[in-house]
Amino acid sequence: MKFQPESLRVYLVIGSQNVDDNPAEVVRIVQEACAAGVTAVQYREKDHSKLNQAQTVALGQQIRSITEAAGVPLYVDDDLPLALAIGADGIHVGQGDTPVTEIHAVAPNLLIGLSVHDLDELANSKADLAVVDYLGVGPVYTTTTKEKAKAAILPAGVASVAAKTDLPIVAIGGIQTGNVVTLAGSPIAGVAVISAITASADIAQSVQILMGEEK
Amino acid sequence: MKFQPESLRVYLVIGSQNVDDNPAEVVRIVQEACAAGVTAVQYREKDHSKLNQAQTVALGQQIRSITEAAGVPLYVDDDLPLALAIGADGIHVGQGDTPVTEIHAVAPNLLIGLSVHDLDELANSKADLAVVDYLGVGPVYTTTTKEKAKAAILPAGVASVAAKTDLPIVAIGGIQTGNVVTLAGSPIAGVAVISAITASADIAQSVQILMGEEK
Repeated sequence: MKFQPESLRVYLVIGSQNVDDNPAEVVRIVQEACAAGVTAVQYREKDHSKLNQAQTVALGQQIRSITEAAGVPLYVDDDLPLALAIGADGIHVGQGDTPVTEIHAVAPNLLIGLSVHDLDELANSKADLAVVDYLGVGPVYTTTTKEKAKAAILPAGVASVAAKTDLPIVAIGGIQTGNVVTLAGSPIAGVAVISAITASADIAQSVQILMGEEK
Repeated sequence: MKFQPESLRVYLVIGSQNVDDNPAEVVRIVQEACAAGVTAVQYREKDHSKLNQAQTVALGQQIRSITEAAGVPLYVDDDLPLALAIGADGIHVGQGDTPVTEIHAVAPNLLIGLSVHDLDELANSKADLAVVDYLGVGPVYTTTTKEKAKAAILPAGVASVAAKTDLPIVAIGGIQTGNVVTLAGSPIAGVAVISAITASADIAQSVQILMGEEK
């Protein structure tokens, strides 16, 4: 799959640990979110996931089916074997994860997203950005869904990273339907969320707001 | 791939941790071993493997190429995503690993090997043996290549397990060219080894002895 910056517009990050360890709930939310128009999905089975290998693969296969049918690119968080096992379109890694050049050498067709906390981390990153398709920048706001999250950088922090790179940026961390408006006009391709969708009582409406259609 | 008991005759288990963390040495040994006639290979990247995800997948891809060209079935030790990622023929798991029924449900075409220490463990195993293709039984002798190895059960212990199952058995643990003769006549399909091949100065000769052609 060729990378398209537009696919970062509303990027859902989800794993069983975000929905009371219930894989069926992950499936339901991914289905509703894809129907509602999310533009990318990241399968992130981490931080005390209670699934075993078979359950992790099985859920990944289901998410792959749904996203494929919807034409939505699927990324796997920091797990190259899993990404290849379920036929994901891409992988998302952090600064301390497997080097992007090594991933690209092994799986040249895989899209690659890289987390960058802030301007300092971009400046000091050893990653070869030539093989990276997009940057995930944040946390923008304080978040409770990711463990050991760094300090919130606010929309100004995102803008300062954007000024120093030509890579498309998806802003992440603490973004909700109630504060996404603060990113309107930011030099970003889109927003990545977990709870803004997983905890939503009306996923279709939440996705619409995150898209900016109701801003 | 359809399972064939004959494929258990000389079964090489190998990972970078067995050869001073040198992936190129794994490749060399797998090549020589396949040329020498080993009948199965298990890729076991465990116990302080120093490879990252990309290196683990890359080495797996190389082993897959070699074994495929040689027509030798490839198993991956206890890593379902990796097995699927590199297109292995099978997976080998222990009693405490992912349940075999769950693996079979997710990957019905994958062959499944299951470790059984001794008669007691076979009797108490909760695994559904209907989805298992073979049992790895042992350690037969004291081994230093596997951490936390259980007590040696000797050829008599292997025979006692064989008497209680119709599944083909590959004996494992401490088997060397110097003691494999003690298993001659045992009701087993073959022997699994690590150092008998990885530490051999003449792999072709070692494989021949392990095959029993020089017994």
